[in-house]
Amino acid sequence: MGAVETPDTESQTVRIAFRVAYAGGRFAGSQQQPDVRTVEGVIIDACIRLGLFSDFRSAAFISAGRTDAGVSAQGQVIAFGTPHPDRAITTLNRMLPPDCWCTGWAAVPPGFNPRYAAETRTYRYIFPLAGLEPEMMEAAVRHFIGMHDFSRIARVVDGRDPMRRIISAEIGVEDDLIIFEVVGESFLWNMVRGMATLLMAAGSGLITPDRIAEILREPGDRIPAAPADPLILWDVDCSLTYHPMERSGKAGIWLGEEERSHLVGRKMMEWLGGNRLDIPRNEEFQNRFRHLL
Amino acid sequence: MGAVETPDTESQTVRIAFRVAYAGGRFAGSQQQPDVRTVEGVIIDACIRLGLFSDFRSAAFISAGRTDAGVSAQGQVIAFGTPHPDRAITTLNRMLPPDCWCTGWAAVPPGFNPRYAAETRTYRYIFPLAGLEPEMMEAAVRHFIGMHDFSRIARVVDGRDPMRRIISAEIGVEDDLIIFEVVGESFLWNMVRGMATLLMAAGSGLITPDRIAEILREPGDRIPAAPADPLILWDVDCSLTYHPMERSGKAGIWLGEEERSHLVGRKMMEWLGGNRLDIPRNEEFQNRFRHLL
Repeated sequence: MGAVETPDTESQTVRIAFRVAYAGGRFAGSQQQPDVRTVEGVIIDACIRLGLFSDFRSAAFISAGRTDAGVSAQGQVIAFGTPHPDRAITTLNRMLPPDCWCTGWAAVPPGFNPRYAAETRTYRYIFPLAGLEPEMMEAAVRHFIGMHDFSRIARVVDGRDPMRRIISAEIGVEDDLIIFEVVGESFLWNMVRGMATLLMAAGSGLITPDRIAEILREPGDRIPAAPADPLILWDVDCSLTYHPMERSGKAGIWLGEEERSHLVGRKMMEWLGGNRLDIPRNEEFQNRFRHLL
Repeated sequence: MGAVETPDTESQTVRIAFRVAYAGGRFAGSQQQPDVRTVEGVIIDACIRLGLFSDFRSAAFISAGRTDAGVSAQGQVIAFGTPHPDRAITTLNRMLPPDCWCTGWAAVPPGFNPRYAAETRTYRYIFPLAGLEPEMMEAAVRHFIGMHDFSRIARVVDGRDPMRRIISAEIGVEDDLIIFEVVGESFLWNMVRGMATLLMAAGSGLITPDRIAEILREPGDRIPAAPADPLILWDVDCSLTYHPMERSGKAGIWLGEEERSHLVGRKMMEWLGGNRLDIPRNEEFQNRFRHLL
């Protein structure tokens, strides 16, 4: 890793870390895969077109963590080596698609790997307030804090340690939404979305908050993951100080159009829904998960 | 029209009008067309599956008006004849897809045609408040009232009269949105969306409100239509009193899920957008339309 020969230059490569934001909706997850649009895929593609590197392996291109299809990020971290650091910093955002951009850069040592450098990761999950009791969710969320075996609410790859340490877990209310923020050293696959399922169950009164401690300990089928689109990788703390980067004009236009479309769409659904008193989301949720809880 | 023979029964047909609501997002418009999903298409399909009629022509199936792809409706009116009125009233909503449902029914005379029975039509258009001055739009909207030639802001089919009478046009502010409500006897194709373009131009300060009167009178290229998704056919007044109909459970679940997704999406875009001070929508809008205004 670090300084490698690239075909277009003989100068030394410099390793840079970028803090990356993306809207998850149009990505099939963050990790590169053939034939689908991924976050790593569009970044690597932009880097190759800019001549920052010709091969992601020799550039030691690495992300701090994987996010699933539909999951957004505010503070993903990637790093790669390039002989053209200035070009990377000044033009990468212009080459990226409108739903993915860098918010900052930091020069890092040649061997820097954001996955191992990450001391903590912070995620946020958004719930609509309607039909949920924030106080119940606040009582529930405490059971996640500390070291626990989370295999009941996550996908654990064979042979991997299912124990994870959660540093903090909080519930906040903002506008008509409940925000769940959780900080951990690292997370199992689907683990935050499994936590979200349990929080919905507690918030809707389907289980008592204290039942969560039992569910985590009990053997049984895996609790299904809540939807991906309300989840955002909020921060990855690699102890770096970033120089700010500006997103492109087209990203600004795209964000404005997306915001407009959600504002309009919400009002449409409010009008079309009329005086809807049912909370169908919870009803459906209860039918799907009741037997597991 | 009216009483016709249907192959499955010899009883008399009864003609019924239905007030229909739909979310426009997944429809290629209201009018039936081969091989695409339309509002008329899904209603006719549901009626045939329920045995309400076997052919839409002999049932004299008619809608009060066409709406474009993406346009929603709260008060579209359709009418058809059927020998099974009870079945229509009690089971049609259960056979319809979740994004289209009847909100009321009324027995009508055999020759009833909602297109001709409609005395007025009401549309609403939603603008995000950011970057727009409601006072300017209020001053602008007055120029639409009365009898005008609207060919500069609508698609006029050859030989059709481009004069239309607008009865009322109002601007309201609700949440972070500006609502434009317009009532007319009838409308040309794309006409409300053309009005929306002019209102955005006046609201963003690109033109003075009084310039609208001149634009309508001046010869010149057609002013492009504003996006379809913020438009809703709010009401068609056929002087009917409707018996209420309940939408299906799956429509309620679908509405709840759509509302959740817009709530979540909006917060995501707010987070990802950060302290965005630009109003890119208007900038783009001005670049596209400036030369016509």
